[in-house]
Amino acid sequence: MESIQARPSDGLSDQGAKQELEEGAAFTPRFDADGLIVCVAKAASDGQVLMLAYMNAEALRLTLETGVAHYWSRSRNCLWRKGDTSGQVQVVTEIRTDCDQDALLLTVDAGGDGGACHTGRRSCFYRKVALDGGSPTLVFE
Amino acid sequence: MESIQARPSDGLSDQGAKQELEEGAAFTPRFDADGLIVCVAKAASDGQVLMLAYMNAEALRLTLETGVAHYWSRSRNCLWRKGDTSGQVQVVTEIRTDCDQDALLLTVDAGGDGGACHTGRRSCFYRKVALDGGSPTLVFE
Repeated sequence: MESIQARPSDGLSDQGAKQELEEGAAFTPRFDADGLIVCVAKAASDGQVLMLAYMNAEALRLTLETGVAHYWSRSRNCLWRKGDTSGQVQVVTEIRTDCDQDALLLTVDAGGDGGACHTGRRSCFYRKVALDGGSPTLVFE
Repeated sequence: MESIQARPSDGLSDQGAKQELEEGAAFTPRFDADGLIVCVAKAASDGQVLMLAYMNAEALRLTLETGVAHYWSRSRNCLWRKGDTSGQVQVVTEIRTDCDQDALLLTVDAGGDGGACHTGRRSCFYRKVALDGGSPTLVFE
């Protein structure tokens, strides 16, 4: 596969570049200063948002090449093929990018128990922010 | 409203802190080195992922206080009440946080034309990555 044309996050002042970024057909993902792009993964079955993670250029390349989601773990500082230990391998059915190409939205079929969160829940977003007497707390639901 | 307890992004080596972060009821959003937390906004009506943006502590506080989404614009470097110019004001019906509290998932009712993207589309994720002869390109669909 040909390499992905990465574009730096700054220097968008030029209107032509902005137009191309937003309305063009060239995939030029904008990695941040750490070389990462944020990725949201949602379930192919019902659209539930499962998790948020990051890819570097290598993780994105591997994801595109293999059709299986690879991420960059910021806490472990390593490339990470989701599901290698949990079995929750994510077969990617679609990748979208946003207007300014600094975020990705993946639609995935998760293997194993179909979940995505290391805590055992299906989605990482298992807590809701509730205002308890004006102070925000978390509710499991 | 009482202030939100911000927690730095590092220093999670302590297992007790990790347990509290993941299984506790305290909302302790982890802002990054720039003081931002990533936010995904999805539509209350059908769950479509509309956009991805960032909040600083002030934007989050205002969102919680007013029930209307406020973000931090990284390109304009300013606080931003979504919809101030477009009319696409986002009434927040739910806020969720993920396991390690470094991401937020908002469910919103968008005003105006119901869209979220400054290009006029409903969702910012209006292009799909397609592999054209092995090279990734973008398709509008």
